Amino acid sequence: MPLKVLVYSRFPKAMMAPIGERFELMETVGQPPHEVFTPEQLSGVRAMITAGGTPLGGPMMDRMPKLGAIVCYGTGYDGVDLAAAAQRGIAVGHSPGANAAGVADLAVTLMLAVTRRLLPADGYVRSGDWASAKASPLLRPQAGNPGRRVGIYGMGEIGRKIASRLKAFECEVGYFSRSRHDVPYPYLPSLKALAEWCSVLMIAVRAGADTRHAVDAGILQSLGKEGFVINISRGSVIDQQALVTALADQTIAGAGLDVYEKEPQAPDKLTAFANVVLTPHVGGHTLESHLAMQDCVIANLEAFFAGKPLPFAVRAADQAISA
Amino acid sequence: MPLKVLVYSRFPKAMMAPIGERFELMETVGQPPHEVFTPEQLSGVRAMITAGGTPLGGPMMDRMPKLGAIVCYGTGYDGVDLAAAAQRGIAVGHSPGANAAGVADLAVTLMLAVTRRLLPADGYVRSGDWASAKASPLLRPQAGNPGRRVGIYGMGEIGRKIASRLKAFECEVGYFSRSRHDVPYPYLPSLKALAEWCSVLMIAVRAGADTRHAVDAGILQSLGKEGFVINISRGSVIDQQALVTALADQTIAGAGLDVYEKEPQAPDKLTAFANVVLTPHVGGHTLESHLAMQDCVIANLEAFFAGKPLPFAVRAADQAISA
Repeated sequence: MPLKVLVYSRFPKAMMAPIGERFELMETVGQPPHEVFTPEQLSGVRAMITAGGTPLGGPMMDRMPKLGAIVCYGTGYDGVDLAAAAQRGIAVGHSPGANAAGVADLAVTLMLAVTRRLLPADGYVRSGDWASAKASPLLRPQAGNPGRRVGIYGMGEIGRKIASRLKAFECEVGYFSRSRHDVPYPYLPSLKALAEWCSVLMIAVRAGADTRHAVDAGILQSLGKEGFVINISRGSVIDQQALVTALADQTIAGAGLDVYEKEPQAPDKLTAFANVVLTPHVGGHTLESHLAMQDCVIANLEAFFAGKPLPFAVRAADQAISA
Repeated sequence: MPLKVLVYSRFPKAMMAPIGERFELMETVGQPPHEVFTPEQLSGVRAMITAGGTPLGGPMMDRMPKLGAIVCYGTGYDGVDLAAAAQRGIAVGHSPGANAAGVADLAVTLMLAVTRRLLPADGYVRSGDWASAKASPLLRPQAGNPGRRVGIYGMGEIGRKIASRLKAFECEVGYFSRSRHDVPYPYLPSLKALAEWCSVLMIAVRAGADTRHAVDAGILQSLGKEGFVINISRGSVIDQQALVTALADQTIAGAGLDVYEKEPQAPDKLTAFANVVLTPHVGGHTLESHLAMQDCVIANLEAFFAGKPLPFAVRAADQAISA
């Protein structure tokens, strides 16, 4: 009899298919598990798969008294109450770095697209406005990459990959993060200092209570009217209402966003801007990233059911910090 | 009295403004000069500014018997009949490399955008389809950059800048051009071999009679159904009708185009595809590129009127080859 695994978040079928070949998946399709399964069924659940951003607290864990492993599909685990899991002796795993190249690539794609006005440019061709030589105020020449100062907030694996890509575009790269890293880029002493220094702010920091709304009205003001903000981390890092205001007031020049405060929703006020590029949380959404993430999920689940430590566990230090 | 310079192609006003501060510009706004100016006026013209892609042959040169310098705004000079200019003792200048970073950046932007389905992704968010969890077949995960084989056709300054950028994305880079260059990328012996080897074909070759329709139905077939073609060079290098057919038949996966056979027109058949990204010939369209191109134009004109050789002349070798 195959081992049962609860799938807590809503995932496209294709993503779970390789995992479903090894385990019997109890799909909730994003519904609360206790509305889909009986208490008896839930009492048998020993392991679950979740999206790291989906809220998962102690009371939900208590509905599955035998739960021993929470396995996040992806790098993030900000939705999981790590302290609650630790108290209950539940191991938490994720897929560190599996999607780093895909996410970094999308970050750079968003920066290039928004600074070069790619969407208005494509619209200008398709509408026939180019052929009829209509004026195109949005397509006035913009600053290019060589010499552009890009500030990276967070210098984990994704931040490093963003930085190495940007250096190839002849940009200057600086960063701020909780601690200095052994990287060949100047360290700015605060997020404020980074925003004042750069013209593109790249958010690549891990989400959590300490980074919630870190990019607020003041930071956007420091970025300035030639500035752009790119977010491929989590929506919670930006004060989204302040961002909408900054875009409406032209406090900044534009934004590229893959993540939002309430997914899958981007507010109407945001989708009305022509100087933003919006993607539906697809940073790690490449074939290789998915294969790598699925491999991590399977390895974590197999180790757990074999009574071994998770090979891709969330670091104990992070659990301790949150506890 | 300021020196007079004929402006042969249609340029946005802002591009000519710094040049207009030094010279008296005779603007044709893209009309044939002899419909805008009298033969007498044209007989006094000693120098002209043109866009390199605009056709300019011997008979037109003969309308300006004192013409001594044709100065192209940009890197290209494919529209200028170099042999006819040489026969008449007319120097031809351009702006070599001035726009290389801007063009290379757009080439990579187009590749990233089309391979990551950026436009459908943005549309999916803005339409509300994401919020209502509608199916999004165009947004199925695609292959990412690490390990992707990108073939660069042409290894001039733009080709080199494209290559160095792509290496940062962890792509494999190969190239084909008329001759081998001292670059750290494998040389493929033919365009056909390059197309068979790569999954993204980047066109960065100088336009001319020898490269016209070099990318034809056979090359697109070799590229294959997972393949993409990106063109930031000139529309003439691709057989555009063959490209439309290849996209319609799904012989290839998509295309990113900044240039077209007949500008400013992209045919309706091309603009109907969702798996293409189309920009209105804005490769070199950044503030720094324009400043650098304007500097080249001014330096060429000042040297010419001072009786000196053009500092940014089209290489004599190229004139000889074409002659």
